[in-house]
Amino acid sequence: MTAGPGPAAAGAPVSEEIRRARVYLSRAVEPPNRHLVALVDRYGPVEAADRLRRGTVPDALLRAAAARRRIDLVDADLDAAAGAGARLLVPEDPLWPAWPFAAFAGCRRPDLVPPVALWVRGAADPAVLVARSVTIVGARAATRYGLHAAADFATTLARHGIVVFSGAAFGVDAAAHRGALAGGGPTVAVLACGPDRTYPAAHEALIGRIAEEGLVLTEYPPGTRPGRLRFLVRNRLLAALGTGCLVVEAGARSGTQRTASDATALRRPVMAVPGPVTSALSVGCHELVRGGQAVLVGRPEDALEIVGRFGADLTPPLVTERRPTDGLAAPTLAVHDALPARSAWPPSRIGEASGVEPDGVRAALTELEQRGLVEYHQGLWQRPARRDRC
Amino acid sequence: MTAGPGPAAAGAPVSEEIRRARVYLSRAVEPPNRHLVALVDRYGPVEAADRLRRGTVPDALLRAAAARRRIDLVDADLDAAAGAGARLLVPEDPLWPAWPFAAFAGCRRPDLVPPVALWVRGAADPAVLVARSVTIVGARAATRYGLHAAADFATTLARHGIVVFSGAAFGVDAAAHRGALAGGGPTVAVLACGPDRTYPAAHEALIGRIAEEGLVLTEYPPGTRPGRLRFLVRNRLLAALGTGCLVVEAGARSGTQRTASDATALRRPVMAVPGPVTSALSVGCHELVRGGQAVLVGRPEDALEIVGRFGADLTPPLVTERRPTDGLAAPTLAVHDALPARSAWPPSRIGEASGVEPDGVRAALTELEQRGLVEYHQGLWQRPARRDRC
Repeated sequence: MTAGPGPAAAGAPVSEEIRRARVYLSRAVEPPNRHLVALVDRYGPVEAADRLRRGTVPDALLRAAAARRRIDLVDADLDAAAGAGARLLVPEDPLWPAWPFAAFAGCRRPDLVPPVALWVRGAADPAVLVARSVTIVGARAATRYGLHAAADFATTLARHGIVVFSGAAFGVDAAAHRGALAGGGPTVAVLACGPDRTYPAAHEALIGRIAEEGLVLTEYPPGTRPGRLRFLVRNRLLAALGTGCLVVEAGARSGTQRTASDATALRRPVMAVPGPVTSALSVGCHELVRGGQAVLVGRPEDALEIVGRFGADLTPPLVTERRPTDGLAAPTLAVHDALPARSAWPPSRIGEASGVEPDGVRAALTELEQRGLVEYHQGLWQRPARRDRC
Repeated sequence: MTAGPGPAAAGAPVSEEIRRARVYLSRAVEPPNRHLVALVDRYGPVEAADRLRRGTVPDALLRAAAARRRIDLVDADLDAAAGAGARLLVPEDPLWPAWPFAAFAGCRRPDLVPPVALWVRGAADPAVLVARSVTIVGARAATRYGLHAAADFATTLARHGIVVFSGAAFGVDAAAHRGALAGGGPTVAVLACGPDRTYPAAHEALIGRIAEEGLVLTEYPPGTRPGRLRFLVRNRLLAALGTGCLVVEAGARSGTQRTASDATALRRPVMAVPGPVTSALSVGCHELVRGGQAVLVGRPEDALEIVGRFGADLTPPLVTERRPTDGLAAPTLAVHDALPARSAWPPSRIGEASGVEPDGVRAALTELEQRGLVEYHQGLWQRPARRDRC
C-alpha cells in the first residue's frame, strides 16, 4: 500500500529545531491564520517561532497569538502525542501531503490556509494515501438511506483503490469510514480535536481501527477540545485532502455545504448523491446540484469516474433489460403494434391499421416472424399466445 | 379560465372543405410524416388531400400513404368523434395551439413535425391552456415515492395556475393529472389512440373527468388503437405542449427519456425530480441531470420558477431553522466553543483554549451573554444549564 520512503523514515531528515518550532506554532495561534502562514513562508518555522515568542511580528498576528504565545508546551505536547500513539508530521517531511495542500496556495479565501503541522496516528504513508482519494461528508443525523449510500459508495470506491477521507463523526462520516474498511481499503479520519482525544467518544473503537488500517490526522495540538468552529475549520483540510468531495446527505444549511464550498474554492470537484425530494436531509445535495456547485452522482461508478484514474475508471454503461421489440425500425414496430392481442389479420388489414405500405408490411412481418413476435397461419398473421402488448 | 373566442367559436371561420381535407389526411398517413407536413405547407390542406387521393405526390409520401390513401372515412370519422363527444381542431382554427407547435418549425429532427389535426374532448380553450403549462411524464410502474412526487408537484403547479399536461397512463401520468385536479387546475391528457377510445380502460373515469375540467387531445382518428410506437410518437406532442417538461421517475431506458429528448430538441427546458439512488426508477432522472439534459428540481417551487411567470414565480428561499450561534463572528464562536459544558472558567483560560486575544474574549463574552449563551458568576463564565454543545 505504501510506496516511497516508509513510515519509519518520517521526519528523519528534519531537524529537531524545525519540529519543535512547528509544535510551538501549532499551539500558539488558532488555525486558520494566514498571517502565521505568511510569517513561516517568509522566515521559515524556526525564525517565525522566535519572532512570535519575542513579539516582533505584525500586529494582526500578535493580537491573534496574544492568548497563547507565551505558553511553551512543546515537550508536553510531544509527550502527550507519543502517549496517544501519535507522531508529528511537518511540511519538511517527505511524507507531508504536499500536493493536496498546494491547492491552498492558489486560493484567495483568507481562511483557506494549510496547517502548520499535523499530528498523525497510524502507520500508513500520508503522501501515498492522498494520491487517489475521495472525501465523503454529510449529515450527522443521517437517515438510513444516507447511511446506506455513504457505505455503498465508500465500499465500491475503496475496492477500486480510492482512499476515503472523512471526519469520524456520527452519521455519514462513520458510514463512509466503515464502508471503506469493508471494501478492504485504508481510510483516513481528519479530527477537529487533539490527537489524544476521541471525538465522538462513542467512536473510540472505530477511530482506533482507522488508525490501524489507515490514518487519523489533526492539526490541533494534544488536549484540544472540538467545537463547532473547529469542525468548520477542520473541513477545509478534508476538502483539500480528497481528489474530489462527495456529499451524501446535507440539510439546507449545514457544515457539509461549507465543506463543499471549501472544495470548490480549492478546485476540487464536488459530487452530490441525490435522495428523495421528501427528505429534508437531501435538500442540501439537491441545492448543490441545482446551483451548479456539484455534479449529481447516482452510482459509485459515477464518482469513480471523477476521482479515479483518468481514462481508466470510466463509468460503465448502464445495463438494462432488453425488450424483444428493441431495435426494430419504426415501420416494423408499427406493424407489430397494429396486430391485436387475440385476432389474426390479413396483411391488408395490418397495412390499414399501421399505415405501413404493403411492401413494408410484408418485410416487417418477415422480420417479426424471425424474431418470434408474429405467427402465420392460413393467410393470417397473429401474435404468439401470451405476449404483452407493448 | 378561457380568454379570447370561447369554445363555441371553435372552427366557426374554417370551411368544411378544409376540415374534411384534414380529417382525410389525418387518417391517410400515419404520423409523424414530414412529407405530408411539407405537402400541406406547400399546397394547403384541400389541394394536398386532392393530390394524395390522385396519387400526384412525391414517392416517399405515396409509399407512406399506400395502405390508406384510398380509404375515405371522413363522414364516419366525424360521426364517430361526435358520438364520443370529441370535436375536430385544425390549424386554421383560432383556438389551435399554434405557439407551442411553432417549435416544430425550428427543429430539424424528421420525426418532430406538428399534427395535421387534433381531436378534442372538453370545453376548455386549448390556446389558453398552453400559455402556462408543464408536461409531467414518468414511469407507468412508478413507486409510491414517484406517485407522491408527481401528485405533489402537479398540485402545487396547478395552484399557481400552471396547466399540467400528461398522457393519462398508469403511474406518474395519472398521479400528475389527479394532482392537478386536486390543486383546482384544469389538466390536459394527450392520448395515443382515437378520441373514441379510452386507454388504459381502467382510466375511463379519470379521462372523463379530465375532459370535464380540461381537455383530452389526440392526433389519431377515431378507432385508432394505441401501441408502443404511437406512445413514442404521441410524446412529441406532450413535449411541445408544455412550457417545460418535468420527469418524475424514469428507468435507465424508457419512453420517458425519449420524451425528454423531444423536449430538448424542441427547446423546452427539461426538469428531473431526483430520488433514492437505490431506486431503479430514479436512474433515468439522475442520468438526465448527470448528462446535462435536465436540471434537478427538488421542490415544486423550483419547477414553478422555470415554467411560471418570468420574474414573478421565483423560488422562495429555503426556510431553515436558526441556531442560537448563527451569525456569530469566528472569534465569538471560538470563545463559545471553548467553554466546557459543565465548568466555569476565567477569561484567561477561555483565551488560551480558544486562541482568542484578551480583548476579543471580553467582547465575545459580552455578546454571548446578551444572547443568553453564557452566564457570569463571581469572575467565572459558564454555559447556561441544558444547552447542546455545538
